[in-house]
Amino acid sequence: MQATFEQLRDKMTKVLIEDDFSRHLGIEILEFEEKFIKARIPFKENVKNNYGSVHGGVLYSFADILGGCVACMSGKFCTTVEGNMNYLEPAVSKDYIYCEAKRVRGGNHLIVVKVKIRNDSGKLLDDGSFTFYRSNEDVVSE
Amino acid sequence: MQATFEQLRDKMTKVLIEDDFSRHLGIEILEFEEKFIKARIPFKENVKNNYGSVHGGVLYSFADILGGCVACMSGKFCTTVEGNMNYLEPAVSKDYIYCEAKRVRGGNHLIVVKVKIRNDSGKLLDDGSFTFYRSNEDVVSE
Amino acid sequence: MQATFEQLRDKMTKVLIEDDFSRHLGIEILEFEEKFIKARIPFKENVKNNYGSVHGGVLYSFADILGGCVACMSGKFCTTVEGNMNYLEPAVSKDYIYCEAKRVRGGNHLIVVKVKIRNDSGKLLDDGSFTFYRSNEDVVSE
Amino acid sequence: MQATFEQLRDKMTKVLIEDDFSRHLGIEILEFEEKFIKARIPFKENVKNNYGSVHGGVLYSFADILGGCVACMSGKFCTTVEGNMNYLEPAVSKDYIYCEAKRVRGGNHLIVVKVKIRNDSGKLLDDGSFTFYRSNEDVVSE
Repeated sequence: MQATFEQLRDKMTKVLIEDDFSRHLGIEILEFEEKFIKARIPFKENVKNNYGSVHGGVLYSFADILGGCVACMSGKFCTTVEGNMNYLEPAVSKDYIYCEAKRVRGGNHLIVVKVKIRNDSGKLLDDGSFTFYRSNEDVVSE
Repeated sequence: MQATFEQLRDKMTKVLIEDDFSRHLGIEILEFEEKFIKARIPFKENVKNNYGSVHGGVLYSFADILGGCVACMSGKFCTTVEGNMNYLEPAVSKDYIYCEAKRVRGGNHLIVVKVKIRNDSGKLLDDGSFTFYRSNEDVVSE
Repeated sequence: MQATFEQLRDKMTKVLIEDDFSRHLGIEILEFEEKFIKARIPFKENVKNNYGSVHGGVLYSFADILGGCVACMSGKFCTTVEGNMNYLEPAVSKDYIYCEAKRVRGGNHLIVVKVKIRNDSGKLLDDGSFTFYRSNEDVVSE
Repeated sequence: MQATFEQLRDKMTKVLIEDDFSRHLGIEILEFEEKFIKARIPFKENVKNNYGSVHGGVLYSFADILGGCVACMSGKFCTTVEGNMNYLEPAVSKDYIYCEAKRVRGGNHLIVVKVKIRNDSGKLLDDGSFTFYRSNEDVVSE
């Protein structure tokens, strides 16, 4: 029996919440669809670099984690094959940094997700893309 | 007066040590040359994902931070313009994950650094490249 | 005296027309603004691969050339530092393959351009991004 | 019956020779192993840009074509999912531009190939990586 959207979403939400690194970033889900997810992290000291903006690595991690969630919504666990990020503006914000991840290529073995990162006022800070390998292992096992 | 290699290395080491995110990863410098740096992070729970291997975002962050150090050894503060990473093998190790970052293109305004990530037995796990913008701001001010 | 938009556009159009490789691809400009360019190439045998779709290298080249045009519209000659492309769908079309290139980061030394490639019916086939180094050399010399 | 190395190599060599775009570049194979290929193209006018160096798109295409050959040596036809290239030095040479493509990740559905481009004197000009999707279609059919 194939997992429902709700089962997959609940499982992935649980994975995120229980993951130490995701919790360090403070990821909070705002929208969660089958092929799209939007979330935010607080613009706080623990993710800032020496220049007072968010670490490039934190931004990438945030995007990769959301991308992985979108990929896993295909029903199978997925792992990142390749990721890249373009940094367009310093990642500063008042309260939060937002990320949207959208599936743009799906398939039995490969999934591609595009990400956009914005500040509180909606300004585009970064964008990137991630390629995931889709395994045979079910996200929700019976 | 131009900063010496020792001044730059000491300053960048200090930046790394004082940075909250670098400390979360547990970065420990092993070699530090003008155009090359090697470091390691412990293979511990706080950097592992749901599959028991190191988060792709942690690996990228580790590489980006080292790449930034190498770029800043040019004497000016540098920011990441673009980064990409290919994940070749699951990032599992016995004790540590190692990263080497090497400058492959230098210039007044642009620096490119290649990175390689390996496990305890020297197996190549990931490689990637980062492009940095070199600002006008001195790393070591008089 | 700074070159006008018209001077820059005329010069870049001339460069494209006289370039052997651009002519091999059959690039035809459709829209040409300061930070945006749209063009097409015929879906013909000389750009197809063994599978009957357009070569990944041709698509990348098409995008890189347009990206370079957009970058040079900043008034200085620019060279590609890094480029990447995600292939989402087989590049097949009835008559033409279209590419749009849009500047998303500008500056004195660095320009980033995003590209999207579509078929006749507007379906997104590929997207990518290019980072350019902006030299000191004027595109239009007095 | 699985195709032999010789059958695969002969088939891929034939594909390259008969491909219009590969012939435009003038690709000449120098070494051809199961997971590695080395080739060169003449440093001629038809691949040069306005600056007198080889087009970034030509270098990428050259690399992508060789990467695809290496990927197809796995016995199944492969298509590029994602490619990226870092341009380190102007691509000028006396007679030829050389490219080496090496498989660094293999699998049933995904292959990753790293490429290095050099001039006549062995200087590294560019490097890049390509991710390929491995289809179910045999390169050599009975």
